[in-house]
Amino acid sequence: MTDMVSKNVQTHNLILMPSGRRGQVARGKTLLEAARDLGVEIESVCGGRQKCSKCLVQIEEGEFTKHGIVSSVSHIPPPTDEELAYLEKEGIQDRRMSCASQILGDLLVTIPEESRAQKQIIRKTATHRAIEIAPTIRQVYVEVEQAQLGFHRGDWGRLQDALDEQWGYKGLSIDIHALRKLQPAIRQGDWKITVTLWNGIEVIDVQPGYQEGAYGLAVDVGSTTIASYLCDLRTGELLATESMMNPQVSYGEDLMSRISYTTERPDGLEKMNTAVIDAVNQLVNRAARAAKIARKEIYEIVMVGNTTMVHILLNISPKEIGEAPFALANRDAVDVKARDLGLKLNPAANAHFLPAEAGHVGADNVAVLLAEQPHQQEGIILTVDVGTNAEIVLNSPGGLYSASSPTGPAFEGGQISSGMRAAPGAIERVRIDPETKQPRFRVIGDERWSDEWVIGESVPVDQQPKQLAAGICGSGIIEVVAELYLAGLLTPGGRFNPEVDCASLQWDQDKRKAAYILATADQSSTGKPILITQNDIRNIQLAKAALYAGAKILMMRSGIKKVDKIILAGAFGSFIDPKHAMILGLIPDCNLEEVYAVGNAAGDGARIALLNKDKRTEASEISKKVRYIETAVDADFQEEFVRAMNLPHKSDPYPHLEGILPKLQPEITKRDRRWRRRQVA
Amino acid sequence: MTDMVSKNVQTHNLILMPSGRRGQVARGKTLLEAARDLGVEIESVCGGRQKCSKCLVQIEEGEFTKHGIVSSVSHIPPPTDEELAYLEKEGIQDRRMSCASQILGDLLVTIPEESRAQKQIIRKTATHRAIEIAPTIRQVYVEVEQAQLGFHRGDWGRLQDALDEQWGYKGLSIDIHALRKLQPAIRQGDWKITVTLWNGIEVIDVQPGYQEGAYGLAVDVGSTTIASYLCDLRTGELLATESMMNPQVSYGEDLMSRISYTTERPDGLEKMNTAVIDAVNQLVNRAARAAKIARKEIYEIVMVGNTTMVHILLNISPKEIGEAPFALANRDAVDVKARDLGLKLNPAANAHFLPAEAGHVGADNVAVLLAEQPHQQEGIILTVDVGTNAEIVLNSPGGLYSASSPTGPAFEGGQISSGMRAAPGAIERVRIDPETKQPRFRVIGDERWSDEWVIGESVPVDQQPKQLAAGICGSGIIEVVAELYLAGLLTPGGRFNPEVDCASLQWDQDKRKAAYILATADQSSTGKPILITQNDIRNIQLAKAALYAGAKILMMRSGIKKVDKIILAGAFGSFIDPKHAMILGLIPDCNLEEVYAVGNAAGDGARIALLNKDKRTEASEISKKVRYIETAVDADFQEEFVRAMNLPHKSDPYPHLEGILPKLQPEITKRDRRWRRRQVA
Repeated sequence: MTDMVSKNVQTHNLILMPSGRRGQVARGKTLLEAARDLGVEIESVCGGRQKCSKCLVQIEEGEFTKHGIVSSVSHIPPPTDEELAYLEKEGIQDRRMSCASQILGDLLVTIPEESRAQKQIIRKTATHRAIEIAPTIRQVYVEVEQAQLGFHRGDWGRLQDALDEQWGYKGLSIDIHALRKLQPAIRQGDWKITVTLWNGIEVIDVQPGYQEGAYGLAVDVGSTTIASYLCDLRTGELLATESMMNPQVSYGEDLMSRISYTTERPDGLEKMNTAVIDAVNQLVNRAARAAKIARKEIYEIVMVGNTTMVHILLNISPKEIGEAPFALANRDAVDVKARDLGLKLNPAANAHFLPAEAGHVGADNVAVLLAEQPHQQEGIILTVDVGTNAEIVLNSPGGLYSASSPTGPAFEGGQISSGMRAAPGAIERVRIDPETKQPRFRVIGDERWSDEWVIGESVPVDQQPKQLAAGICGSGIIEVVAELYLAGLLTPGGRFNPEVDCASLQWDQDKRKAAYILATADQSSTGKPILITQNDIRNIQLAKAALYAGAKILMMRSGIKKVDKIILAGAFGSFIDPKHAMILGLIPDCNLEEVYAVGNAAGDGARIALLNKDKRTEASEISKKVRYIETAVDADFQEEFVRAMNLPHKSDPYPHLEGILPKLQPEITKRDRRWRRRQVA
Repeated sequence: MTDMVSKNVQTHNLILMPSGRRGQVARGKTLLEAARDLGVEIESVCGGRQKCSKCLVQIEEGEFTKHGIVSSVSHIPPPTDEELAYLEKEGIQDRRMSCASQILGDLLVTIPEESRAQKQIIRKTATHRAIEIAPTIRQVYVEVEQAQLGFHRGDWGRLQDALDEQWGYKGLSIDIHALRKLQPAIRQGDWKITVTLWNGIEVIDVQPGYQEGAYGLAVDVGSTTIASYLCDLRTGELLATESMMNPQVSYGEDLMSRISYTTERPDGLEKMNTAVIDAVNQLVNRAARAAKIARKEIYEIVMVGNTTMVHILLNISPKEIGEAPFALANRDAVDVKARDLGLKLNPAANAHFLPAEAGHVGADNVAVLLAEQPHQQEGIILTVDVGTNAEIVLNSPGGLYSASSPTGPAFEGGQISSGMRAAPGAIERVRIDPETKQPRFRVIGDERWSDEWVIGESVPVDQQPKQLAAGICGSGIIEVVAELYLAGLLTPGGRFNPEVDCASLQWDQDKRKAAYILATADQSSTGKPILITQNDIRNIQLAKAALYAGAKILMMRSGIKKVDKIILAGAFGSFIDPKHAMILGLIPDCNLEEVYAVGNAAGDGARIALLNKDKRTEASEISKKVRYIETAVDADFQEEFVRAMNLPHKSDPYPHLEGILPKLQPEITKRDRRWRRRQVA
């Protein structure tokens, strides 16, 4: 006995890599426990019961057994038959389960990335950033005391006791759907179950025995496009990305027409709500199928969108957002059972909506800020999220300012004669030769430029284009207009230049109207050429002027003359090219190397909020911090809008485009001016 | 200014009746505020805005205005035109709104019962008891700040601020259904709304302007009968009582056969759940119609029932309750959205289930204890709730003991040839003349005894019985068997006495089987006589023996020889007569003056939990305190059961029935004994 006691109090040195954390630990403790004592959390779902194999570590000092496995005969015990069987089955040579490894001597142990409890994913952004995986959903394995005659605690009571004793959870509630599954699960699992918890306060699922698999969906509900991201909530891994058109488009292309639809028809809201909920359910199905998981394994959905979209998703009329003073029903974050919205995930799944900033700056913009964190960075940063509505945030010394501009659907392919969303066949890149005025382009689905295409019946299949051009998506639209201007085909006023004559530009008889042939009939999947019309150009001008004017108002209100950095976000699939965006005059002048295109940052922000619950708190703080400028009632907005119609701008200078912009800028005609006034009105 | 200040700090004497509370209060304060300062809460829904007229008080000192209204010219200001208009409209002569009455001098004020915030209802029980009205549901009237351009709090945020400032509520959540109504309600009410709160933590409804009306339903779901009680949650008033047969009866009369139905058929649980939920929805509709209120004004439902009923209501399989160790899915109280159970009340209404004690003693028994409070009383008290399952609680010096006995549906009219539930036409009282052996009875719906009835075509309608006899209900069954025994028509073994000859007793040819004519063909609504058969007697004997044996086991286990008091509860409408229950041997011997029949105490307990949230905490404490004795596996139970088959008992003495029981007790025959053994087996 004395010997035992002295052995028990004996300690050994333990060094944990890569953190380098070290300390004296009691002999006989498992590596899992000892690491926790030293403040290093090794992942474990089963709580040290040699079930989940999530806690594998590499023992750096020790001796090899006959199986070639590190066993450190003298410092940790050799593996049990069960552990050995598992390691051999998985072909693991150099690792041991830390929950099965008692410390019997000094050890140096490396904890590989996948065994660390605080996992991270790296987001490729303007500034690469690590996201810690700390979701609201957690699965734990528990052993529940068996029911006995004379003990009346009830299975849920016994499970509460087990969750408290084995995992430290107190005061839990249980969703009625989980309670309904409890008794069969607990008996099928022979009193061992896997419990899924939400936010550390509610049991939302129970499954017999040891089970793995908790997934979440981040959804960015744009006015035109809905994008969804299915993630593994334990590892943070992105398993599937699925997107589709927002079916509400058939009820109106822009937000105002959708709001009108809900107010003018008694069943307007219901129809719009059903349409978007059905769409999200379709994306759920598609994503689950792509990742080969079951819908009921999706335990949380995080949704972002502009305020109108969020209202409609919650089945709240967006009527008040449509008129001054643009009052939201709710600005704060919302947690609601997904089933109460008609969403078909796990029946007890939670739906989380990020908060909004103001009547016209919604959860999608909060998500962009969560993803890009301009407020955490140095310098004056303009963050622009280009969609059917553009949300603009300026990070000035005076704080964060935001505004919303109704750009319309042009940047997402709407109101463009050959516009389409970013899908295979969409033209996403365009270059126009300044000499020949001939275009070349690249479509989604083929990496070659169109001038490398070989078309013809005699061409071998593998040399033919994988995709013919089907239309043009947002990034392509921005590039083609900028390139037309660079090539001298457009006047700064945005009209086709009558002084240029080339094969690609087709004029009508009296040379008043023209169209540019971007793709020939041969290159097009429909057999008809893809044209850029004068009207397409005007729609892009209107959209970019609205966006620029919004940014300008923010700069004026915060007393800023120039910005240090621009972050260009956009949900339309392909990234916007910063240079073309600036030539178009979508954004103010900036060092081109400080303009970053980050893709769908709103979707990324939703994903971040899905994977890390602390980021939801941060979102709430951000949403309250931003000062919103209402452009719709700003006296200067209309004036700035008109001045911004020109390419790139009528009067604001673009020193960083020096040498890039065409030198000779034809004057704007009176006719141009009249035409533009009509458009603006 | 100096004058004003000195006036402001001036104080007056205020005496509040009937409490007699008194103190110095600041001049200029309203009576509503001043009473609160003195610790006396006057009711107010509108928060002192002269909207709700709930705070009317009687000014005992003062002078009369020309309108004859107490205005205490010198001590409180005269009523405003609005107040005057209201008082005149309602014909109120002697009261004033306390929220409109500034204190300008010494006052003696009487707060009438209906204006007191802590209202009470008196429950007529074994010991009359006052129930304080303190429900989870509260309605408050608030004025919300108007939405303004440039302020982005959102309507829900503004409402949260208003609820905090005007009523002190913090950290509230809002049900999605209430959030959906918020914007139209707030604007329709011109930024004034009535908010319905649940448990001080969640907004569950919003209505424009000042609104009144919050109702709750207490439901006792018995195996055979479902009883519901609709209450006004502000006043505690009982507005409607509606009951119906439990439609699950068609799937099995007793609990075990219902449990088997759910386990043996794949859709068994679903069918049983749908049946009972539909039934509760029917009762909701009926009660709402009877009280002339809308279903959506019912904001909470409290449900009690035995454990099997509660499991099925929650759509949880009762499989485990059907076999040892009789494990409950959940023993604790449950709060769940009524909509998640398929109940059609207000869409955000809460459903509360009281906790259970053990596998076979459910929320209904906790409700009985909540209503009767035996544990708060002196002496040894036996509480018996007679239903398809009898729940028995013994309050001994060693604490509370409970047991459950499967009495079957006989006491509720089931397994009785002419049995029916307590409804118009049911025989509820029976007397048999010891000399003539002729019966007389009383039916529900007519206060006269049957021997006062005048039947015949020539009899004027107002003299004819209001109801003919349609069958016999629980209390009638107990009385008829006890009376048959008292009249010497039954042997102690429960057989019709072959030595008695009378017109009412019909024997078959070989005088082995008999039936007693309780109602003649003339007296019966079907035109056929209502008979009590030998089989009816046997079923009552089996039922009462099960109940008695359960009580006896509790007495044995707690070392009790005799009880001081017996509380007889039962859901079968009419109250059980204590004397007849004791003659039958349903309960052990006790001073007859200490046997109380309290009707449906489970329903009363549900109503108490509906009206007072603190009682839910008490229910939780009671449920954990009771020690449950499992009679099903108790070795003595079978023996006690056999001995209890006799009327009133084979060997336990009944000194309190001395002089009441027939002196000459015919011996039990061997045939009796054989018959009984067959029945028991």
